[in-house]
Amino acid sequence: MLGLMQDWPLLCHKILDHAATQHGRREIVSRSVEGPITRTTYADAHLRARKVAMMLEREGYAPGDRIATLAWNTARHLEAWYGIMGMGGVYHTLNPRLFPEQIAWIMNHAEDKALFVDLTFMPLVEKIAPQVKSLKQVIVLTDGQHMPETALDNVVAYEDWIAQADGDYRWKTLDENAACGMCYTSGTTGDPKGVVYSHRSNVLHAMIAVQPDAMGLSSRDVILPVVPMFHANAWGLAQSAPMIGAKLVMPGGKMDGPSIYELLDTEKVTFTAAVPTVWLMLLQHLEETGKKLPHLKKVVIGGSACPRAMTRKFQDNYDVEVIHAWGMTEMSPLGSLGTIKPEYADLEGDARLDIQEKQGFAPFGVEMKVTDDDNVARPWDGKTFGRLKVRGPAVAKGYYGGAGTDQFDEEGWFDTGDVAHIDPNGYMQITDRAKDVIKSGGEWISTIDLENLAVGHPDVAEAAVIGIRHPKWDERPLLVVVPKKDREPAKDDILGYMEGKVAKWWMPNDVVFVDEIPHTATGKIQKTTLRDQFRDYTLPD
Amino acid sequence: MLGLMQDWPLLCHKILDHAATQHGRREIVSRSVEGPITRTTYADAHLRARKVAMMLEREGYAPGDRIATLAWNTARHLEAWYGIMGMGGVYHTLNPRLFPEQIAWIMNHAEDKALFVDLTFMPLVEKIAPQVKSLKQVIVLTDGQHMPETALDNVVAYEDWIAQADGDYRWKTLDENAACGMCYTSGTTGDPKGVVYSHRSNVLHAMIAVQPDAMGLSSRDVILPVVPMFHANAWGLAQSAPMIGAKLVMPGGKMDGPSIYELLDTEKVTFTAAVPTVWLMLLQHLEETGKKLPHLKKVVIGGSACPRAMTRKFQDNYDVEVIHAWGMTEMSPLGSLGTIKPEYADLEGDARLDIQEKQGFAPFGVEMKVTDDDNVARPWDGKTFGRLKVRGPAVAKGYYGGAGTDQFDEEGWFDTGDVAHIDPNGYMQITDRAKDVIKSGGEWISTIDLENLAVGHPDVAEAAVIGIRHPKWDERPLLVVVPKKDREPAKDDILGYMEGKVAKWWMPNDVVFVDEIPHTATGKIQKTTLRDQFRDYTLPD
Repeated sequence: MLGLMQDWPLLCHKILDHAATQHGRREIVSRSVEGPITRTTYADAHLRARKVAMMLEREGYAPGDRIATLAWNTARHLEAWYGIMGMGGVYHTLNPRLFPEQIAWIMNHAEDKALFVDLTFMPLVEKIAPQVKSLKQVIVLTDGQHMPETALDNVVAYEDWIAQADGDYRWKTLDENAACGMCYTSGTTGDPKGVVYSHRSNVLHAMIAVQPDAMGLSSRDVILPVVPMFHANAWGLAQSAPMIGAKLVMPGGKMDGPSIYELLDTEKVTFTAAVPTVWLMLLQHLEETGKKLPHLKKVVIGGSACPRAMTRKFQDNYDVEVIHAWGMTEMSPLGSLGTIKPEYADLEGDARLDIQEKQGFAPFGVEMKVTDDDNVARPWDGKTFGRLKVRGPAVAKGYYGGAGTDQFDEEGWFDTGDVAHIDPNGYMQITDRAKDVIKSGGEWISTIDLENLAVGHPDVAEAAVIGIRHPKWDERPLLVVVPKKDREPAKDDILGYMEGKVAKWWMPNDVVFVDEIPHTATGKIQKTTLRDQFRDYTLPD
Repeated sequence: MLGLMQDWPLLCHKILDHAATQHGRREIVSRSVEGPITRTTYADAHLRARKVAMMLEREGYAPGDRIATLAWNTARHLEAWYGIMGMGGVYHTLNPRLFPEQIAWIMNHAEDKALFVDLTFMPLVEKIAPQVKSLKQVIVLTDGQHMPETALDNVVAYEDWIAQADGDYRWKTLDENAACGMCYTSGTTGDPKGVVYSHRSNVLHAMIAVQPDAMGLSSRDVILPVVPMFHANAWGLAQSAPMIGAKLVMPGGKMDGPSIYELLDTEKVTFTAAVPTVWLMLLQHLEETGKKLPHLKKVVIGGSACPRAMTRKFQDNYDVEVIHAWGMTEMSPLGSLGTIKPEYADLEGDARLDIQEKQGFAPFGVEMKVTDDDNVARPWDGKTFGRLKVRGPAVAKGYYGGAGTDQFDEEGWFDTGDVAHIDPNGYMQITDRAKDVIKSGGEWISTIDLENLAVGHPDVAEAAVIGIRHPKWDERPLLVVVPKKDREPAKDDILGYMEGKVAKWWMPNDVVFVDEIPHTATGKIQKTTLRDQFRDYTLPD
């Protein structure tokens, strides 16, 4: 027996319809790539997005076509997304921080047919475009006046282009499971893999995100998504902000401390979100200038673990609530958020920070478990860690073209590649990457915990832990240390410092000193390289 | 091209899974029908609901079977709902305030196979049960010790019954569009009509309800749903509270001022919801005793228009925020909520109350329009009223058995039967019922507005306005007045009072004085009877 409720498909462009109808005069403020701050509204965006959809159709693009964007967070980028989705297309965000060959590879893999691009990236596009066979057209997100000279064919200025349409367009009615967006993840090994969002998954993800215990967004909020639309869907803010009719402030290409501060202050931003690096720059600017954050209420920090000192500064010095979050491109991306359950509501000071150091708990719509290598669930005791697996309506079930099938099991669980523990109240903490964790006699040792401990030693500048083959225990930890300048710590000194602070069987079997530890482009320790470097190393007895 | 996101159907029992996993120790406090306050948790409810599901299967009930409930808001009623839904059944709430013959008619129409019933209603069930052919079993929501004597066959005590199952049950995996619940609406004319909720509609409705701009619910809330589960789905709180893991306080059968106050106070309730009548009783109790509401933050008031004086009292005297809401059984039921958009955020005093007197705005997931009789949309100017029509994933597309098809059009719009205007910021206000509105020369006159005006006259106790046939204007208003005791107002006196306060063409063509105006069981003016009474009345020239 079926219910008798309306067939009202969850389509992303209905979000913009809602914003225009119920919050039409709410502003979208952008730092434009050309320079000035621009002001439009949801009603404007609704009209301009329909012009984009009309023009895409007129140019011959069809539902299902992938339309790439290589752009900062601006009103135009947002309009382009909704225009693409509204005509049935699939927005495909490209990360300009990748190598040009990677971008070209990704575009060819997705068979992108058109590209919306910011002025900033025109030199990059001139390199890439000739390598992408499917690409028919480049739409530069500017007006005719600012158009650069280019040797590329089929290049148009966005403003001139959409001016040809009147916007009297009816969105395509689509299956809610139709693709609407695409984003590639680039791991440290292998080819990038394409995540394909559906209208349904994006709408549900936004509904999850706005809840009080997730981001807690309302029409009275002023939202600054510093996290780029090309980075994991801007954490859903391009959908969740219009869904609840919040004023949007788009930072364009400027993420430095003074630029972000200027927007936070002049636009009276109440809510913002970005990776720790951005906040380091802001906090430094605030400390240098003595400025305060009187309007800002909440900051969501994710992408990598939020340092305890950062949470403390925001909360104690600036009265801004920190929400530590975790997610993945494959999860649309929100997986968990560190809002405070009643069990922890009375905690203060360090006890509260202990909880906020965790990555938070999963909202309704995200199922979570930690398992051993045989997929047996491990207890939620806040210390037993295992492979973190997730399931939900906004979690990928595969990658474009069928890559990476081993990450999904027949019950729908996606193996995140992270290792974590979950406490009795559901708060999850990432302890390692699965490929880095050390397996010693069937038990797991967190390399991140050991590294965090070792850098507490006064003579240690940086530390990395890797597993070394061991005849009896399979693997045992080796601690690699970069000493601080002009310091020469001894092995036993460092091991002595660590002793008693971790379980005895976690203690590294040896310590080696090096001048430098290899890093990835985004500043993470490159453990693959480090493991290669120590491939022939033999642990002492 | 389809997205590559997981097929994770929106099923109601996943809400209880989530509550048990993430908020397992959060309490469900109930005023039991037997008397004492009982305490369970979401983990308990999860286990007990699975026992219900196991027992229903064991007794031979199958997915799609309608299982009725005739019960107050208690933990047991909640468990029963989830147990029924989790085995694929359809909970069917019966309103004990209807006449026994109506309840029997409804049960026969729905072909209910089993009935969960509170002790309170056993005398009623003894009358009804023999008339319901499909009914196989009655499960009394109590334990063996409290079981009453009964002549009915196949009656079991809930606690003894579920004790036979261990709860080791895997919920049925269902199509998210499967029916999960049923509720009949009983209009003033015609047979009751069955609304059939789906798992999808209930889950989406709960996701809409918890948003900051709707009910704004978090795990730190303590929620008292005074609005009964048998009345329009308890406004979704049986789903939205466990979805976000809030402590639930269930009032059982006692809705009087002192009983509600006791729960608000001892359980530190932060959020509650009910019709104005309940709040009148509570406010009276508070005024008599001088008690305060230090824990309560928000109260949602709907079901009928919330009087301005009530909003003022809650806000000014008790510092409790009032959210005026509107909805219908056919809408799961939320349609609009009067939270404050930034456009109105700075209003204070009467200006704020003017906005709060409206029924609020539609959240994402509810589309709304007002039209004339030819289905042409009317402007959102805060004064032009029209037939209120709605659309959305939690709005009915028909009634059980195919009744009432004229209320739905081919574009999916449901005609609510209400007449309303919507202001430029989206705030809707109900001005009349469509069947009561007076159509004079193609223009509409609100009978409610005229009535509210007339009762302002010092000699008027009650007033009702109905349309009377008119040769030129089709219909013209007749004002029916019950004078205050020992007063004898004159026609011209009353019309003179009204003059200048409404448009000239709205002025009643005549005034008649009566001793009494007919009312429905719930206290509303029975305009059908009144119209019958004045069928042969002729207006003066």
